Amino acid sequence: MSTPLRLGIAGLGTVGVGTVRVLRDQADLIAARAGRPVEIVAVSARSKAKDRGIPLDGYAWEDDPVALASRTDINVFVELMGGSDGPAKAATEAALKAGKDVVTANKAMLAIHGQALALAAEKAGQVIRYEAAVAGGIPVIKALTEGLAGNGIARVLGVMNGSCNYILTRMQDAGLSYQEVFAEADALGYLEADPELDVGGIDAAHKLAILSAIAFGTRVDFDAIEIEGIGQVSIEDIDQAADMGFRIKLLGVSQMTGRGLEQRMAPCLVPATSPLGQLEGGTNMVVLEGDAVGQIVLRGAGAGEGPTASAVVADIIDLARGLRLPTFGQPAAGLKAARPARAAVPAPYYLRMTLVDKPGALAKIAAVLGDAGISIDRMRQYGHETTLAPVLIVTHRTTRTALDEALAAMDGTGVLAATPVALRIEDV
Amino acid sequence: MSTPLRLGIAGLGTVGVGTVRVLRDQADLIAARAGRPVEIVAVSARSKAKDRGIPLDGYAWEDDPVALASRTDINVFVELMGGSDGPAKAATEAALKAGKDVVTANKAMLAIHGQALALAAEKAGQVIRYEAAVAGGIPVIKALTEGLAGNGIARVLGVMNGSCNYILTRMQDAGLSYQEVFAEADALGYLEADPELDVGGIDAAHKLAILSAIAFGTRVDFDAIEIEGIGQVSIEDIDQAADMGFRIKLLGVSQMTGRGLEQRMAPCLVPATSPLGQLEGGTNMVVLEGDAVGQIVLRGAGAGEGPTASAVVADIIDLARGLRLPTFGQPAAGLKAARPARAAVPAPYYLRMTLVDKPGALAKIAAVLGDAGISIDRMRQYGHETTLAPVLIVTHRTTRTALDEALAAMDGTGVLAATPVALRIEDV
Repeated sequence: MSTPLRLGIAGLGTVGVGTVRVLRDQADLIAARAGRPVEIVAVSARSKAKDRGIPLDGYAWEDDPVALASRTDINVFVELMGGSDGPAKAATEAALKAGKDVVTANKAMLAIHGQALALAAEKAGQVIRYEAAVAGGIPVIKALTEGLAGNGIARVLGVMNGSCNYILTRMQDAGLSYQEVFAEADALGYLEADPELDVGGIDAAHKLAILSAIAFGTRVDFDAIEIEGIGQVSIEDIDQAADMGFRIKLLGVSQMTGRGLEQRMAPCLVPATSPLGQLEGGTNMVVLEGDAVGQIVLRGAGAGEGPTASAVVADIIDLARGLRLPTFGQPAAGLKAARPARAAVPAPYYLRMTLVDKPGALAKIAAVLGDAGISIDRMRQYGHETTLAPVLIVTHRTTRTALDEALAAMDGTGVLAATPVALRIEDV
Repeated sequence: MSTPLRLGIAGLGTVGVGTVRVLRDQADLIAARAGRPVEIVAVSARSKAKDRGIPLDGYAWEDDPVALASRTDINVFVELMGGSDGPAKAATEAALKAGKDVVTANKAMLAIHGQALALAAEKAGQVIRYEAAVAGGIPVIKALTEGLAGNGIARVLGVMNGSCNYILTRMQDAGLSYQEVFAEADALGYLEADPELDVGGIDAAHKLAILSAIAFGTRVDFDAIEIEGIGQVSIEDIDQAADMGFRIKLLGVSQMTGRGLEQRMAPCLVPATSPLGQLEGGTNMVVLEGDAVGQIVLRGAGAGEGPTASAVVADIIDLARGLRLPTFGQPAAGLKAARPARAAVPAPYYLRMTLVDKPGALAKIAAVLGDAGISIDRMRQYGHETTLAPVLIVTHRTTRTALDEALAAMDGTGVLAATPVALRIEDV
């Protein structure tokens, strides 16, 4: 095969520039591995005039990404603009209709319109590939869709937003508050233009929605994910969790249960000695659990020019090599709508309470937990100089429902000086 | 595509039985993901009578794997017999000649005959897949060949023999000698029939040879690997390395240098806080370093029925899906013969010496190191009750050549009470 694979690339931000750079710098290596040359034919971005540090004069320019997507001289439309709707979606749809395959890094678009786009791709006889959409340079889409294809998947979980993990580990290392580290991260350019996408857990939840669809053969269902960001995580909780042998991570978990598909993105405790607990800084980690393979852990850079470009180029090489799979690993029409299940899987919980320091206060809390059928694994009351007594409890495995009942009942005891913090401890 | 993919499976040991079991238990899931049914047509093993705990009466039986490989009613020959030569090689060659694709878990065969088999496969227009040959259930062949295909690979390294890692971590945890833990592991059935394949580093080196070929586009060259097993690792070194913040691992490293391809398999020190340093028990870990993606770490079970079967079945599903790649990711005729380079990359070293306890002994050692241009990063002399003084040195980065010179010169100082231990500290 010596016919070149011809690309149109829309979007020349960090990922687009990185992709162009890798395709240029490694052209010979890529041609050797792909079995044919890979050529950039045309590009599109908001401003033609902007200096992006790479020469673009060898490529045709299109102001309109939809026009780029429909060019007759390209085989593959590479969508690196981002945004769930607008030009990214319009151009992707145009590309499929025009008989082009699509490579994209767009997690939001796939999390929200993935099912419709997968159907459109199959109708057109084209494929959509999106390795860069989840966990940057880590080849997790490939590992799950292909490498673990013989496994019934039990659970998929991971740390999929490097900015949040940076913030949480920096809080712990420097003993700083969330607000202080947020300001630092923002100043360093570590956050999205809308930081809530990062710290609110939305970006990571987009990724989780995509992994769920592949893992469980279900239609991608972003809206069913329970999402809680890291804005409420306090340095007290980080320190006291550490004292009990845990780390706090923004953890995405997707799990098929007897009651339906549980998908959640929330700060959780994990054992400090587990691979997830040991993950520091801006790195990503995805854990895949299969019935045959057991637990596979993948770790690497989740963002940045090089890692994301690596994933985009891997998809392009796959297409050049003739690998053609349905978007979520199975024909989209056969994907089932999963019943969403909220916190169906029981877990131990970490509770931090501030009690008024009077006789019998702790006994009342213990009684409320006992009444809700929740037993205590470990409890610590810390020394204190005020009239408020900080108390930590690690419960045995319980349901979220029982815990919510207990928390409501605690409210009526009159011994709480503040709203308790309750964080799930995930088995990893 | 509803035409079934039809398999002939040779070898019904742990891996073969696991593969049959996964193909049966997950038949519907596999058909949905593969886009077509996958059927076992015929099997072959040494003894037809043996009870393997799975029903085989639905499959044709062949006493001769070569006859199985040539059957006209199969598309794929699944070689799970093992052994670099003999029936495994004969049947693989027969399968390719008869126009069958091959799936194998046979690291020894590929490490030794990989280039010839890859040429034969390409001549016949067939493909060989071997995900299970390296690191069991971890999809590392796929990650390297496809997921990181856009990267110039800088280095591949890892812990690729679970038995050795089990022995080393058990020595440390229980404070036992190599001999004691070896006997335990042997009794538990953790070792190959010829344990030297495991503890001598040969099995892991077979895997490294395969990874090197993919990573660097070179012909697989097992003979060029410097191999040292774990038999000489003492509990003293494990404890004292730990005391300096390190762990000892049987580490395979492959790296393209200005002087050629360096491939080594030897006990090395790694920082205790690194992912490799934290790897305990029988788990495998492979680290892939690419120029765009940075460092990707993959962790999972390196052996066992389920994990190995997971990898074999993934290869089968890839073939059912129509994925066809050259054996080592590029046409075999284009793979270059790499010049082997011995310890070309400088590194810090760990030295453990036992000195006779007399004035000036340590000064002599320090002088010898200085003369060889080796500077000392850290030194510890331990308290002692005998006339022998245990001394640990961590050097700054130096070459193996300089170190060997220094070790030779030390021999002439008359202050060594025993041969020094020198272990490389790998940057990870």
